Amino acid sequence: MKNDSEKKLSTESYKGVRDFYPEDMAIQNYIFSVMGKVAKKFGYQEYGASVLEPSELYHAKSGEEIVNEQTYTFLDRGDRSVTLRPEMTPTVARMVANKRRELIFPVRWYSIPNLFRYEKPQRGRLREHWQLNVDIFGVESIQAEVEIISVASEIMRAYGVKDSQFEIRINNRKIVNYILETLMGLSTETAGKVAKAIDRKEKVSHEVFGKMITDIVGEKDNFLLTLLSSKNLEEFVERLPEDGKLHDGIVEIKTLIQALEKLGISNVVFDQTLMRGFDYYTGIVFEVFDLNPDNRRSLFGGGRYDDLLQIFGEEKVPTVGFGMGDVTIRDVLETYGLIPSQKNSICLCICTVGNEHIDYAQELAQKLRAKEVSVIVDYSGKKVGDQIKRADKRGIPFIVCVGDDEVKTGEFKLKNLKTGEEKIVTEENLTSLLKN
Amino acid sequence: MKNDSEKKLSTESYKGVRDFYPEDMAIQNYIFSVMGKVAKKFGYQEYGASVLEPSELYHAKSGEEIVNEQTYTFLDRGDRSVTLRPEMTPTVARMVANKRRELIFPVRWYSIPNLFRYEKPQRGRLREHWQLNVDIFGVESIQAEVEIISVASEIMRAYGVKDSQFEIRINNRKIVNYILETLMGLSTETAGKVAKAIDRKEKVSHEVFGKMITDIVGEKDNFLLTLLSSKNLEEFVERLPEDGKLHDGIVEIKTLIQALEKLGISNVVFDQTLMRGFDYYTGIVFEVFDLNPDNRRSLFGGGRYDDLLQIFGEEKVPTVGFGMGDVTIRDVLETYGLIPSQKNSICLCICTVGNEHIDYAQELAQKLRAKEVSVIVDYSGKKVGDQIKRADKRGIPFIVCVGDDEVKTGEFKLKNLKTGEEKIVTEENLTSLLKN
Repeated sequence: MKNDSEKKLSTESYKGVRDFYPEDMAIQNYIFSVMGKVAKKFGYQEYGASVLEPSELYHAKSGEEIVNEQTYTFLDRGDRSVTLRPEMTPTVARMVANKRRELIFPVRWYSIPNLFRYEKPQRGRLREHWQLNVDIFGVESIQAEVEIISVASEIMRAYGVKDSQFEIRINNRKIVNYILETLMGLSTETAGKVAKAIDRKEKVSHEVFGKMITDIVGEKDNFLLTLLSSKNLEEFVERLPEDGKLHDGIVEIKTLIQALEKLGISNVVFDQTLMRGFDYYTGIVFEVFDLNPDNRRSLFGGGRYDDLLQIFGEEKVPTVGFGMGDVTIRDVLETYGLIPSQKNSICLCICTVGNEHIDYAQELAQKLRAKEVSVIVDYSGKKVGDQIKRADKRGIPFIVCVGDDEVKTGEFKLKNLKTGEEKIVTEENLTSLLKN
Repeated sequence: MKNDSEKKLSTESYKGVRDFYPEDMAIQNYIFSVMGKVAKKFGYQEYGASVLEPSELYHAKSGEEIVNEQTYTFLDRGDRSVTLRPEMTPTVARMVANKRRELIFPVRWYSIPNLFRYEKPQRGRLREHWQLNVDIFGVESIQAEVEIISVASEIMRAYGVKDSQFEIRINNRKIVNYILETLMGLSTETAGKVAKAIDRKEKVSHEVFGKMITDIVGEKDNFLLTLLSSKNLEEFVERLPEDGKLHDGIVEIKTLIQALEKLGISNVVFDQTLMRGFDYYTGIVFEVFDLNPDNRRSLFGGGRYDDLLQIFGEEKVPTVGFGMGDVTIRDVLETYGLIPSQKNSICLCICTVGNEHIDYAQELAQKLRAKEVSVIVDYSGKKVGDQIKRADKRGIPFIVCVGDDEVKTGEFKLKNLKTGEEKIVTEENLTSLLKN
């Protein structure tokens, strides 16, 4: 038997998390930079927090199940239970609650945190992923939804996804509650079960779904199933009783669709079966849906959650927000061929003919860097031909060689490795040429 | 007794970690952006990895003590021991080992990961901090040290720290080993103890230090204490036996100092007492030291570690790198008054006179955002005067109001809230004015 010190350590990452080699990191940075750029244009400011949170934070609203079974939760050495955050919303609610008296509302914030879930790793579902979170705190009116959905839509467009390739599905928890509790007279608990069943609608057959509903609501199933099968908002409203046709929730949906339409956002549809998982939503919920016929699926979503700050003993703060995961978005961009090719960040390689010129090459590099040009020096001592080949393999666009002649004359032959073009340049015009 | 559901949740973060509210996040982003910008100019590419690593990764070189007592280590649900990374070097070594055959050497990489240590939180020592890691893999020659120390020096300068305000202390593990093992004939174990004692030199009195050394090395203490008290490289070398004067380690130190001098980096001093904590260093080690008379201290450092890839059963890869923590750097920049005031990221607030013009204001905002102007709309329905006050409180530089007149004429009064200056503008020249 081998003992520990003889065993080779694995070079693999922990299961279900990713290593980001430079090519992947560049794509990740591209994805994040678009998110950040759009959020900033809408006046959102970046915030951040630790991935480590007291576990209590997730007890109140997510339900014990998530904390115990789907999170990384452990005791620290002081016997305090800590959790690697599975979502950002409780954290941002905590931060707003903590400085509630100092903040100027409405608060517009975004963050791109990493989140952990203990799941069996599979395509698109990793144990760690990053998620853009965009939230506006302190707005009761539907303008908050107009704005938040505009941000979501603008990010998709900024990636180059066409409006015809995705749709924004919206629903309203107020309508769901009105139907299940007011009209059907179900208890909150039973209503919750129905909502969970509706959430699974797309995953089961028509028959199985019908049976799931009947099993929960009994004879009232027909009314509900008819409502749920409505083809559009008009049909749905038509099937409501008279006072329901003017229900707050319906008015909000109509106002929202119209306002977005005015802003040129027309790929919005009402979807009475849209539920969204989290318990804390209280009003409009929405989901961005990929219309790719080969892979129709929900990409991300969000909604209004007005009550969350109450878990901190604070008054309600009306809030609307969404979360957008990096894994899904990267997958969409790859499917649609929308990831831009990453430019090589190194502009020039200075090859050295003989070790005696390395100091000179380093000084030249330093001067170019002072002008914001990204430069490396090849001080390997290898043949110049090999140095050039290696620069080319790295995808570096330009090289110059430094040898006796160059040091004497102060003139260099700048070679474009893509085109093969060569040009004699002085130190001074080297910078200006490389900057273009 | 209250039951759980009645208890208020705390709004505090977990102990020893930080929340980054937008003002702090902006400073953090500034600190990171300077790091990244300088690293890229030197041709370094960004990589990343998960904060969660298999615990075995830290057994091999850091010593069991660190893994067990100073890290966050726990079992996942599959009974696998995982650790929140306490440093990045094992991770980057793992990643290089994993793709060794595909990578083009030398590999120049940087990352700004968060790291966790289980410590009693105190000033400058938190449980979570971020640390720039810059490493070059695959260079045996001292040019790697020249480059890495240039990067470190350039980052300090890019922050605006003057060369007179910090110094770069260098030593060489090869010299330490030559003295302790070759000259004094100490075992590796005893030599390790001496190195640890020397590392504590600044923290104890002259007498206590002398006694610590005598206790470990006995009668050879005088030779060692004399060497350690050398005032500079010349005196130190003078005290070595003839063959020691030409020792590799000494030649490297001299070459390094000269090469850095040629690049205009003159705040470099030899320090024979510099040890650096980690066991994996094999050659040059360095430390950037704050010369502020009120707070002289080590800021960060690094060195050469040629053997680390061996823990993965791979051949050696000569490597030089350093790590630079965000907490220390922020503290230095604050002390020297070098944190630039953060510009407000929102350029314009559109105030609305009456709710009927909100849609118009949203459309105007959308047009400006399409031109990359950061805009918010105040749709609070409050009095315009209050809207303007709130925009000013937020530090937004410009406002326009949208009411009946503006909608009719398409002309707006653009007001600079800093100067009070007002200007009548059309929609078209609003963009160009705001972009300047």
